[in-house]
Amino acid sequence: MATIETALTRLLGIQHPILLAPMGSAAGGKLAAAVTHAGGLGMLGSGYASEAAIRKELAEAGNARVGVGFILWALDKNPQALDVALDARPAAIMLSFGDPSPYTQRIKAVGSKIICQVQTLEQAKQAADAGADVIIAQGRDAGGHSGMTRGTIGLVPAVVDAVGPIPVVAAGGIADGRGLAAALSLGAAGVSMGTRFTATAESLWDQAMKEKAVASGGDQTAQTRVFDIVRGAAWPAIYPGRALRNDFFAQWHGKEEVLAAERKTAETAFLATANNDFAQRVVWAGEGVDLVRDIPSARDVIERIVDEAASVLRGGAAMVRG
Amino acid sequence: MATIETALTRLLGIQHPILLAPMGSAAGGKLAAAVTHAGGLGMLGSGYASEAAIRKELAEAGNARVGVGFILWALDKNPQALDVALDARPAAIMLSFGDPSPYTQRIKAVGSKIICQVQTLEQAKQAADAGADVIIAQGRDAGGHSGMTRGTIGLVPAVVDAVGPIPVVAAGGIADGRGLAAALSLGAAGVSMGTRFTATAESLWDQAMKEKAVASGGDQTAQTRVFDIVRGAAWPAIYPGRALRNDFFAQWHGKEEVLAAERKTAETAFLATANNDFAQRVVWAGEGVDLVRDIPSARDVIERIVDEAASVLRGGAAMVRG
Repeated sequence: MATIETALTRLLGIQHPILLAPMGSAAGGKLAAAVTHAGGLGMLGSGYASEAAIRKELAEAGNARVGVGFILWALDKNPQALDVALDARPAAIMLSFGDPSPYTQRIKAVGSKIICQVQTLEQAKQAADAGADVIIAQGRDAGGHSGMTRGTIGLVPAVVDAVGPIPVVAAGGIADGRGLAAALSLGAAGVSMGTRFTATAESLWDQAMKEKAVASGGDQTAQTRVFDIVRGAAWPAIYPGRALRNDFFAQWHGKEEVLAAERKTAETAFLATANNDFAQRVVWAGEGVDLVRDIPSARDVIERIVDEAASVLRGGAAMVRG
Repeated sequence: MATIETALTRLLGIQHPILLAPMGSAAGGKLAAAVTHAGGLGMLGSGYASEAAIRKELAEAGNARVGVGFILWALDKNPQALDVALDARPAAIMLSFGDPSPYTQRIKAVGSKIICQVQTLEQAKQAADAGADVIIAQGRDAGGHSGMTRGTIGLVPAVVDAVGPIPVVAAGGIADGRGLAAALSLGAAGVSMGTRFTATAESLWDQAMKEKAVASGGDQTAQTRVFDIVRGAAWPAIYPGRALRNDFFAQWHGKEEVLAAERKTAETAFLATANNDFAQRVVWAGEGVDLVRDIPSARDVIERIVDEAASVLRGGAAMVRG
């Protein structure tokens, strides 16, 4: 198969410029290892800086060279969770949704790469100043949590211009080889993908969730706080999560204060929801979900995306005359 | 200079796959003619289906082959405005923000191409069924009015898959050659650009507005209804406008009902705003505004974008190994 060499593949020592987004709900050790074994870089979710979750998923990843992702506002409450990750000498630590600067020295000291995920141009400049080795520019097109201010297609080139020569990775709305080729065209050195990997054989999601993603489209998604509020997840309001709109969304979106006040009652019902009751259950999904049409292995995903991107990049050059 | 040949350039008989977005505030006959003379397709704004505006700007465009854009919910209130445009046998009619089907037969009858701009995948399918010759997939990354549901990077490939072989044009967040190359990578056959063209020599904007765009960044933009409400523009709530956040935005965004109730008073103050008082005045801007760094001619914009895109497309192919 084809390969695509970029500043990201060279810096991280990987074959393909594809990172697994460290989704708490889907990106366990098994999926992260599969992405790494297929030539990308697998990133583990660490829950909300849970030492137990990190230990469990690192064990699941076996000897695969993976990274660990942290939600910064959660890590701020339990900073020793970083040590559990660093003890494993991970290939990289990803830091998102907060200020990375308190953690960069500890990460550098063990030789792991620092990947900062940002949601605005201003945050990208701060991450560069904080010593990021890689900056992920994540648009609100993304599934799960992201910012609200910027979309992927405008954010990526602006970040590239601001932080070069630090490699920039595009995230949000990318789920196939066309998206990888587009990201590279925008000046990114690779992509971080979540939604596409939720519907893979190795994802932690159950089969009903994976099939729901396959059956759904981007028009059905929206950014909302209601699924965080009902679960008592303390996400700052500036970081909503993109999920499929459903009855629960329709009932509570726009009534967040009422939901918060009635949380205990709502939570009991929500947690008792049957696994296949998608009128209530949250299915995180980015706008790339239109392009998720099957449930292959992570290796199949990566190989087909790289092959498609290679074909698109060659075809693009063939459009040029003169 | 290089050229890039696509299904769009072939269908519309143009040299470069670049459309001018028919912005009421900026895209007069002079700018539309300049875009056409430079090898793209200039599109006139028609105000809110104003026959006088269409006649005036068509006259300004002289003998240049241009198109005319309509806001469908406004055209629905004054459908005879379409006849004024069709009398000029325009290259194309662009229909946005509503149901295009009542108008397509009249447009086809005079031989103009039908360009439907859509904001969701569902609307794209409806536009294809209505007989669109070209479909513009516009993400909320765009400046001025757009939808809220979809971003450009995820919407474009989904629309391409749904409506092929109809040529798809990407709009929203695209302002340089990297954006054009990315759009082509996503499967689009061209781009429609607004924000980049607001800051050109031929734009109807005054110099202070153009300089404000150059000095501003995408982080400062937001979708909002407040500037429409204060001006009494009857935009449906699902189509907010992306503009620079300013004091007026800060005062009223989130308090739309109060603003509507106090509109007469607010409007008087708003309309009396000095031209360079950007704390109050609206400056429509998409997220591509980070990439707007000067005020060149429309021809310079087009030539540098095509040259940059050609270079990016060739460079992309060079990344592929094997």
